[in-house]
Amino acid sequence: MNRIRVAVDMDEVIADTYGAMLGWLIERHGPRWSPETLHGRQLFDMLELDAADALREAMHDGAFFAELPVIDGSQEALSAIASRCELFITSAAMEFPNSLGPKFLWLRRHFPFVDPLNIVFCGDKSVIAADCLIDDNARHFQRFGGQGIVFSSPHNANVTGYPRIRHWNEAIGVLAEVFPGAL
Amino acid sequence: MNRIRVAVDMDEVIADTYGAMLGWLIERHGPRWSPETLHGRQLFDMLELDAADALREAMHDGAFFAELPVIDGSQEALSAIASRCELFITSAAMEFPNSLGPKFLWLRRHFPFVDPLNIVFCGDKSVIAADCLIDDNARHFQRFGGQGIVFSSPHNANVTGYPRIRHWNEAIGVLAEVFPGAL
Repeated sequence: MNRIRVAVDMDEVIADTYGAMLGWLIERHGPRWSPETLHGRQLFDMLELDAADALREAMHDGAFFAELPVIDGSQEALSAIASRCELFITSAAMEFPNSLGPKFLWLRRHFPFVDPLNIVFCGDKSVIAADCLIDDNARHFQRFGGQGIVFSSPHNANVTGYPRIRHWNEAIGVLAEVFPGAL
Repeated sequence: MNRIRVAVDMDEVIADTYGAMLGWLIERHGPRWSPETLHGRQLFDMLELDAADALREAMHDGAFFAELPVIDGSQEALSAIASRCELFITSAAMEFPNSLGPKFLWLRRHFPFVDPLNIVFCGDKSVIAADCLIDDNARHFQRFGGQGIVFSSPHNANVTGYPRIRHWNEAIGVLAEVFPGAL
């Protein structure tokens, strides 16, 4: 039996972009946001226009993406997935083209066991041929040909209809449930 | 009927990377290469080690990719394809990570009608879900799920077994043959 192919998103799934965005905002605007106010909402929807514009401008500088923290447990989980499945990293990066180089180098630094040929930067994830996609944005699942699996983030707390990974230490268990006998 | 999805490679298909590499070499080493000596061979296989290393180093500087000439007829052909099919650009860019940003901006400049969400940078093209892939490297077709179509370049002159586009003005005709009634 061929190994299943698992595609994994980057921002807010293995890279703590959300935490870095929140830290950037709180540093400039004070502690106006908490996990409670953000629950189930998109961060950009909470911002006044000038704060949103300033944050987008900061993100257009690729340096923002060079030093993102690694999401807890992602290295161990992806290493385990890579040993049992065909692992691809699929990141929607086209909104911030300057992030492309820094994101690639970030992956090489923190996930050296991921084959660089298995790194994909794209926009519309319906172009990804994989058995499943682990992503925090369920909108990517609508036209994706495989099984979508939600990775928990405050903004997707209310999303239902897909298997969910709440922490990376659940990942192998969830994959084994979704693909019985394949791992 | 859904529109067919056409994936198109970038280097040596719509961007004249080969010509730029050859120009770079001739400028430094004199006219030691001609279309005749290169017929059916990979450029890097023709080089002594120091010239190959120097060329790779130049290519690791993203600026090499910022000013590539556009392959003759590609803009008109891709515009025609985009109006009849779902068009994606799929470029294997992971060998030169500094090329990612410049390649994206080059596409926006020369192919402004391509949706930026339909741009994909990857390594292993078996991850691309598309009906066909127009590419100069037939090795990408071996694990690709759709139909490979060779785009002619001196190095692939001897490749057989796939439909071939010798010039972009043939593209719509070849696609209409491969996918009868779909265009």
